[in-house]
Amino acid sequence: MSKYKVIFQPSGSRGEVPKGKTLLESAQQLGVDLEAICGGKGTCGKCKVRVEEGYFEKDNIDSKMSHLTPFTEAEKKFIKPADGDNVRLACACQVEGDIKLFVPEKSRAGKQIVRKTAKAISVPIAPAVRKYFIELTPPTLKDLTVGDLERIQRALKEAYGLEDLKADFMVIRNLQDVLREGEWKVMVSVWHGKEIVKVEPGFVDFTYGIAIDVGTTTVAAYLCEMNTGKVVSTESMMNPQVGYGEDVMSRITYAMSNDDGLDIMQKALIDGLNDILEKITADIRTNGESGGESIVDMTIVFNTAMHHIFLGLNPVYIGRSPFIPAIQNDIDIKARDMGIRINPGSYIHVLPIEAGFVGADNVGVLIAEEMYKQDEKILIIDIGTNGELLLGNRDAICSTSCATGPAFEGAQIKFGMRAAPGAIEKVEIDPETQEPRYKVIGKPDWHTHIEKVEAKGICGSAIIDVVAEMFTSGIIDKSGKFNKELNSPRIKKDQDGKYYYVLAWADETSIGQDITVTQGDVRALQLAKGALYAGAKLMMQKMGIESLDRVVLAGAFGSFINKEAAMTLGMFPDCDIDKVYSVGNAAGDGAIMALLNTDKRIEAREKARWLEFVEIAVDPNFEKEFMMAMHIPHMKDKFPNVKKLVEASGSKVQIKE
Amino acid sequence: MSKYKVIFQPSGSRGEVPKGKTLLESAQQLGVDLEAICGGKGTCGKCKVRVEEGYFEKDNIDSKMSHLTPFTEAEKKFIKPADGDNVRLACACQVEGDIKLFVPEKSRAGKQIVRKTAKAISVPIAPAVRKYFIELTPPTLKDLTVGDLERIQRALKEAYGLEDLKADFMVIRNLQDVLREGEWKVMVSVWHGKEIVKVEPGFVDFTYGIAIDVGTTTVAAYLCEMNTGKVVSTESMMNPQVGYGEDVMSRITYAMSNDDGLDIMQKALIDGLNDILEKITADIRTNGESGGESIVDMTIVFNTAMHHIFLGLNPVYIGRSPFIPAIQNDIDIKARDMGIRINPGSYIHVLPIEAGFVGADNVGVLIAEEMYKQDEKILIIDIGTNGELLLGNRDAICSTSCATGPAFEGAQIKFGMRAAPGAIEKVEIDPETQEPRYKVIGKPDWHTHIEKVEAKGICGSAIIDVVAEMFTSGIIDKSGKFNKELNSPRIKKDQDGKYYYVLAWADETSIGQDITVTQGDVRALQLAKGALYAGAKLMMQKMGIESLDRVVLAGAFGSFINKEAAMTLGMFPDCDIDKVYSVGNAAGDGAIMALLNTDKRIEAREKARWLEFVEIAVDPNFEKEFMMAMHIPHMKDKFPNVKKLVEASGSKVQIKE
Repeated sequence: MSKYKVIFQPSGSRGEVPKGKTLLESAQQLGVDLEAICGGKGTCGKCKVRVEEGYFEKDNIDSKMSHLTPFTEAEKKFIKPADGDNVRLACACQVEGDIKLFVPEKSRAGKQIVRKTAKAISVPIAPAVRKYFIELTPPTLKDLTVGDLERIQRALKEAYGLEDLKADFMVIRNLQDVLREGEWKVMVSVWHGKEIVKVEPGFVDFTYGIAIDVGTTTVAAYLCEMNTGKVVSTESMMNPQVGYGEDVMSRITYAMSNDDGLDIMQKALIDGLNDILEKITADIRTNGESGGESIVDMTIVFNTAMHHIFLGLNPVYIGRSPFIPAIQNDIDIKARDMGIRINPGSYIHVLPIEAGFVGADNVGVLIAEEMYKQDEKILIIDIGTNGELLLGNRDAICSTSCATGPAFEGAQIKFGMRAAPGAIEKVEIDPETQEPRYKVIGKPDWHTHIEKVEAKGICGSAIIDVVAEMFTSGIIDKSGKFNKELNSPRIKKDQDGKYYYVLAWADETSIGQDITVTQGDVRALQLAKGALYAGAKLMMQKMGIESLDRVVLAGAFGSFINKEAAMTLGMFPDCDIDKVYSVGNAAGDGAIMALLNTDKRIEAREKARWLEFVEIAVDPNFEKEFMMAMHIPHMKDKFPNVKKLVEASGSKVQIKE
Repeated sequence: MSKYKVIFQPSGSRGEVPKGKTLLESAQQLGVDLEAICGGKGTCGKCKVRVEEGYFEKDNIDSKMSHLTPFTEAEKKFIKPADGDNVRLACACQVEGDIKLFVPEKSRAGKQIVRKTAKAISVPIAPAVRKYFIELTPPTLKDLTVGDLERIQRALKEAYGLEDLKADFMVIRNLQDVLREGEWKVMVSVWHGKEIVKVEPGFVDFTYGIAIDVGTTTVAAYLCEMNTGKVVSTESMMNPQVGYGEDVMSRITYAMSNDDGLDIMQKALIDGLNDILEKITADIRTNGESGGESIVDMTIVFNTAMHHIFLGLNPVYIGRSPFIPAIQNDIDIKARDMGIRINPGSYIHVLPIEAGFVGADNVGVLIAEEMYKQDEKILIIDIGTNGELLLGNRDAICSTSCATGPAFEGAQIKFGMRAAPGAIEKVEIDPETQEPRYKVIGKPDWHTHIEKVEAKGICGSAIIDVVAEMFTSGIIDKSGKFNKELNSPRIKKDQDGKYYYVLAWADETSIGQDITVTQGDVRALQLAKGALYAGAKLMMQKMGIESLDRVVLAGAFGSFINKEAAMTLGMFPDCDIDKVYSVGNAAGDGAIMALLNTDKRIEAREKARWLEFVEIAVDPNFEKEFMMAMHIPHMKDKFPNVKKLVEASGSKVQIKE
């Protein structure tokens, strides 16, 4: 097959790619940092690149013969004259000759700031794998009829009463050398009192386990010392599958539309996990083992699609009605069967999933928050790339998942980006002047006056902030429409007559243009928050719950949003603001708890089956609730500008709360 | 590293080998058929090759500078002027330049005639893996909370009362597609009522299992249809480890003296088994699977060294005191962990071993013959490359292994060879004329007169025959010495004055020289049979057994020996000749039985631990018994020539029986 040379500037990455690969695939192959929020489906328009060399003619952009396939409809939609000449969507064109490209700052993905840290976990230590020290009588010619394994089994029975122990095959392979190296004193790791999964020479004090939370966007790993239950190290990374689709549905599509799509994504994740294992165990290497081999137990949570892809299960059936997973209960799999480089005889405990759209990560949240032990009526909102809701208390719990769209992650937002350096993460707007101040990731201070702070875009938490602030400062009304009466240089109209708000002037940014919040951005956020609100409202109706005692914001993203802004926007039904709080990455906390205590595994198994999954989207009231929830609720007389705005516009829409 | 061109004639095999490889290693690398009974240790002298090109000088064989390393002591011992010029031992010299060699007929290994066929097995069919057909209700949106696996588990519980079934991970991987391909009707294979190891679409009538007997020299595989218990196909091959040593100790040595020796031998065996699986399932391929995947269960037996090498366990500890195996009980290992290409979710059942020197093959003999259910006092002699003895009845059974040496296999015999085409396999000698008649493998008739029958050597069964016949025809006396009085052109003396008997004249052979039986050959056979006899005798003494009710000759080799000749030689203590019989490959029969009936697995486990292993070699009476057993017993007046011989020699040695 023909291969062509492809060069990406400014990184200078270069290499040969086969004819017919898209530029996005080429960038992925060459390790070039290129944004692709939609996973290469031509729907986000984020992967713009400029062709620097590789044209035959230069006359007319549409008829131009280049070393790329011709302009597509998708490109016509996204690429505007303002983007400059020779700009293409990397996902939409294929390589047909040698070519040199430039990736503009705006199209670079950047390294996500990972916000999944573990909080202190308080759970009794009762792990699946326990270590036992034994001293054996060395064999003699008079004690012939006992093999090495049988000698260990006999000693474990005598010293600890452990009977009918099986032994993992990999343990048997090393047994003879380990026994002799340890001079017949060994440390034996036993899984659930049933199976020997490791034998180490001599007395080994430390036992490590690892809990892993695979998010759609971010993967977090927590290394625990199992005797103390302490999280001794935390590592995280972008989910390497992001290159194949930013959201769950694009990855399912990738698996469906590529013969080896599933294998590729599975391998990317497993390679990534092995990298993380290598890093996280750098300080605990002993006995000449690779660090990962010191880890004798592992738990893992993820949403249902990631669960299936990790296990190599075709995710297509969970993507279409009736949304049936291959397996929903928890399962223990030998690490070596997965190619995960912990102790090869150990098991990976995969927590159960709830249903086609509510995954093991939500089960992690459930067992971490233990709402099934509470009297209070609690709503847990887990905002990752998907939105998942849990509602109830000890009497009953319902769960659902909401199609929030990716607005909270910065996608479908004109200047949206992930939480990476350069992203605006917090915003306030002066209600009198409509002048903003904002904070940029990577900069220590809030920005209040014109200076070069190299803002690049807006991440999810700031989108919530800015829309809430635009409302409270009267820039938009409760239906989300711009107030035409306000006289501010920051409120402008584009050539189609659509209003937008300038959050940062071009000279404050690193991208050389104004960072703005458009009418479309406001609408996208309204859709996202409306879906969450309507979902919660319908679950409350279904369960006969009239008011919430507590609202818990879970998920890495949940920890960083401003709860007042979220409440202003109406992301969730009314609740005393003091009873609204963030718990951080509760899914990861659940994985850690299940690692440290096998009772939590049983709890997860039972509660995942006990709770009721509600398919909100098929509820006949959903559309009505959703439409109503799109509005921004009027918080009585709290915000003077809003009051003025409402009076001025003479709105007839009934205020809901 | 330097590489040199090496050519082997007459096959013309050629290739490059790194400097420093021995010629034997080069032959193995290039797939050249070269005998190496001792495994390259320079002790059998069978791997003679002639250098055709590659000498610098030709003056003096000792000082000659060749493209090979200099002559060794081992070569000086084995290479005689009669071998011709420029002959070397392939295992003793290393390549130092381009070289061309000729492999004489005598040094070619040939393809062993495999004699391991299965007899009809009669055992109730109660296999470990059973198949269940189920029809599932397809999932709907109203039946959301059940995954595919849970749906199957529910159906198996409802239809067959199977509870708490686990599922193999590989099964889950294919579950979704299989269910939908079978339109929710599937055949489920369940292992021991505990674990789902396979799910097939639709109704599948046939179930296959395989039983494997790995001998030191020969590997036999028996494919069984599990519903009927019939052996539907048998395949066998040389054990591919033969290239690394013909006997157990040479392979243990190979594992010890080469860093990756164990891995190399394990891989050779597993690759070989996969080849056999491919062949034996050629006719049963269905569903687009490779044939091996139709096999859902497997049992395997072997001696302890092969057991360890197969499992990747270092065999060094079973080769030195106190001879401790890594594991002695039976074990079930996932086929995929072993790289054995049957259904990947299935288990390989490895039968238990008895002790460091008595393996799972002997346990196979035990459960096939069921001596623990008999009243008669039975001696079972399993003559493979090692000799193993079982003695006893329902009250008690002892086992031992005898260092017979490789004489029965044709090694340490001047013209000894394996049972391959060209080998003399049966011999009779006329007691009046001392003229022999013999039968050659690959020729239909006995040879009685001078014609070119292309005899090449003598295999084990014929060595027993010929020595027994030499005794009964008076050529040797009961101490094994040649009768100097006989006047026959076939009885000759070599230049050292040692007698030998010409079995075939040069012009009847394919090797252009007389095939002879030397005094040394007779001694080697006496040592081998003496070890067996002494072992049996000592076990009888130990157990207080005065006479045997039955003698069973097991093992492929056992089936082909002439029981009268064996009794004449005194291979085993006296027994009514009608109560001496061969059972063929009883180890393989035991493996088949354990495949078809799980009770036999339990029997194997219990009886392997119940019987007593006796280390014969450390018995203080062993040496005395062994010396006495070396003699050929005088069978009263049965053989007139012997009578004459005894009278003539005036022997004072007491006749034992």
